[in-house]
Amino acid sequence: MHRVDPSLSRIPVPSEELAALPDGTAVELHGMVQRIRRLSWGAFVVLRRHDGLVQCVVPAEAAGDAMSRLREEQSVLFRGTLRKAGIKDVSIRLRTAELQVEGVEFLCTPDEPPSVDLTKKVLELNLDTSLDLRPVSLRHPVERARLRIADALCHGFRQYLRSAGFTEIHTPKICFAGAEGGANIFKVQYFDRQAFLAQSPQFYKQMAVAFFERVFETGPVFRAEPHQTSRHINEYTSLDLEMGFIGGFADIMATETALLASMMEHLRGACSYEIDLLGARLPAVPPSIPAVTLAEAHSIAGAASGRDYSAEPDLEPEEERLVCEHASREWESEFVFVTHFPTSKRPFYTMDDPDNPGTTLGFDLLFRGLEVTTGGQRIHEYGMQVEKLKSFGLDPADFDSYLMAHRAGLPPHGGLAIGLERLTARILDIENIRLATMFPRDAKRLTP
Amino acid sequence: MHRVDPSLSRIPVPSEELAALPDGTAVELHGMVQRIRRLSWGAFVVLRRHDGLVQCVVPAEAAGDAMSRLREEQSVLFRGTLRKAGIKDVSIRLRTAELQVEGVEFLCTPDEPPSVDLTKKVLELNLDTSLDLRPVSLRHPVERARLRIADALCHGFRQYLRSAGFTEIHTPKICFAGAEGGANIFKVQYFDRQAFLAQSPQFYKQMAVAFFERVFETGPVFRAEPHQTSRHINEYTSLDLEMGFIGGFADIMATETALLASMMEHLRGACSYEIDLLGARLPAVPPSIPAVTLAEAHSIAGAASGRDYSAEPDLEPEEERLVCEHASREWESEFVFVTHFPTSKRPFYTMDDPDNPGTTLGFDLLFRGLEVTTGGQRIHEYGMQVEKLKSFGLDPADFDSYLMAHRAGLPPHGGLAIGLERLTARILDIENIRLATMFPRDAKRLTP
Repeated sequence: MHRVDPSLSRIPVPSEELAALPDGTAVELHGMVQRIRRLSWGAFVVLRRHDGLVQCVVPAEAAGDAMSRLREEQSVLFRGTLRKAGIKDVSIRLRTAELQVEGVEFLCTPDEPPSVDLTKKVLELNLDTSLDLRPVSLRHPVERARLRIADALCHGFRQYLRSAGFTEIHTPKICFAGAEGGANIFKVQYFDRQAFLAQSPQFYKQMAVAFFERVFETGPVFRAEPHQTSRHINEYTSLDLEMGFIGGFADIMATETALLASMMEHLRGACSYEIDLLGARLPAVPPSIPAVTLAEAHSIAGAASGRDYSAEPDLEPEEERLVCEHASREWESEFVFVTHFPTSKRPFYTMDDPDNPGTTLGFDLLFRGLEVTTGGQRIHEYGMQVEKLKSFGLDPADFDSYLMAHRAGLPPHGGLAIGLERLTARILDIENIRLATMFPRDAKRLTP
Repeated sequence: MHRVDPSLSRIPVPSEELAALPDGTAVELHGMVQRIRRLSWGAFVVLRRHDGLVQCVVPAEAAGDAMSRLREEQSVLFRGTLRKAGIKDVSIRLRTAELQVEGVEFLCTPDEPPSVDLTKKVLELNLDTSLDLRPVSLRHPVERARLRIADALCHGFRQYLRSAGFTEIHTPKICFAGAEGGANIFKVQYFDRQAFLAQSPQFYKQMAVAFFERVFETGPVFRAEPHQTSRHINEYTSLDLEMGFIGGFADIMATETALLASMMEHLRGACSYEIDLLGARLPAVPPSIPAVTLAEAHSIAGAASGRDYSAEPDLEPEEERLVCEHASREWESEFVFVTHFPTSKRPFYTMDDPDNPGTTLGFDLLFRGLEVTTGGQRIHEYGMQVEKLKSFGLDPADFDSYLMAHRAGLPPHGGLAIGLERLTARILDIENIRLATMFPRDAKRLTP
């Protein structure tokens, strides 16, 4: 027997702590070589660290034969001295100091140069190439920063909800039935049976309201959507919440308002480097977000485009853009809720509006031209849920374990789901949501 | 257009804040009726709130006809006054005060009494019944508390890693190949192709080391394990991490030691109510966890049982128990690492030990008789990885997008995966890990 040496648990020094060290401090930094600019006296080497890039000055005499062996994407350990500097390049995280290198250790040298030119300011690859080469293209500071923004949004989502009395849950992704209906569901061979991949954690988060009152989940959901669009991927991260004891569906919209404000505040604090680098314009979340009914949204879009949308049961992408433009211009809000979609267009668990038959107490949240959230009040009474299942042509017996929750009693409740990739893409003004996720899946793409 | 009323975003008052309010404070509490004890003067009603149970005193005269309408699992709003109390029942979270009820509002009344007697101190159901009725049985304070412990462990995992420079990632669960090999992989019909459900995020977390250096994920993984045992489920939550620039695999064990210590500290602070209720005995994480090789583990187990395990390529469940007993007794540690499993028993990405050919730089962590973590150093050199794939009878061409990361350069790295349900089960001394998860999946169970 021996004991594990606890001193081996070492945390790399954050860039902010490096910035605070006195001029002339001796440090060791490890990282991967992002770029090399060779000059007569040596080289500027930009090192990729866990939290961003740092500039290193490598004089030829200090590096010895190391200078000729330096390669991009090498893993190295640099020993040297921190010197004050004023660096303007926003891709560099540590801009007030640079490392004067005195010793170099090579930890791993790749066999060949990277298949993507990672030294460019912006990757100029077409989408498919960038995605095919993602294990390499994600090493570019811009691509990497986008994922850090998504990470901070996810963290901000959890952080706010925990502070607001929510409990995190982990629900099964292999399911006995689809929650959202329709044909866009993946089938899994589950031993001797057929099962499905979860389209949403809907059933389970509703069940959980009975024991935790307020729950959230940040997990993958799966939609067998065959169409290739810039706003769909087949596996995405759903930021889900569900809450009991609501007075009505406006409570959920109010909760989302507070949640989004908190998420943006967290993002601003946690990702100032990435925000600068990406030139991201974070939205202001108004204390009170405007809401329109679907009928009103159709009128607004119709007035702007000259088309008549009034018979449409849903919002077209073009309308989402027009309504957002209107909300920005007239109401000074980049967010706008659209409510009262027709019963036929919303899943069977949605509560109908007793005051407006045929419409539902549900909403979408539009942001910069795109639907980023769907939510609403759910049916909590057993009898009402059974009736609605039947009216949708579904057999309540197929949903027995779900209805068990209603039979045993549920409080009035509702919830929502935010698409993490969509929200990230709109904040960063990324045209295609594939670039807001690490390794996207679509009908044509199963790798990397 | 109207504006969403932000005041509708209301956070229920945590029990700790209720406890701090002065005697006689008027409050409104909503919740579900956990139990009713009817007496001549009225009733004691225990209310289930978002964070635990609270005792309410409902005098007959105050409730009026409400008294006869009170039912278990009703959703109610109680108006009344907080009164100091000294409550001994550890299932009650608020033990220093109770609510003297003055008004009752019914929000939803179930059609029938719950199918599980939720008023009992402990649910005495057999496992299958408890799981069949999980949407109801999880409303019992003991079952509910177990999930809160799992939640706190997950939160503690993330919190420590974020503080240690790790970035959270979301990797695809629909994959082109299995990472762990073997037959226990689920197949998905993915449009016109066959795909697989992720057995682990292994490929992706290794790729991510190149751009974030240190990454973690808390997500579902899927194993098509056909056997029904108390330690296996087919979908579980894997707490994964991967870190670059390690000096060797002991760095990962040291990181896990610090991580576990932090997780236990968080759990103790966040879940004192649940720990009391469950009588949980949290483990002390020693500053330095003992480690033995597989050969040493076989000797220890052999000496204890009189059997000869020396030819076994893996640890048997019986040995895991014996080694843990030994570590507890001789080394005062409930945790023990076992290292140097044979090459043939570890996946193809595992690094072999150059000093002990045929064995690997990997480890399992045993805790209270059960393996709760598998980890180790991975191969970072392209040539070495290609050779190992071939020696496993695999075609490197099938892993092209994975090997792209090695070709482009990777630092020395390694990582681990903790099974959340297993860790929770051992901390709570739950015999079957199914009871440490919300809605377990096994070969026979696909519902609820």
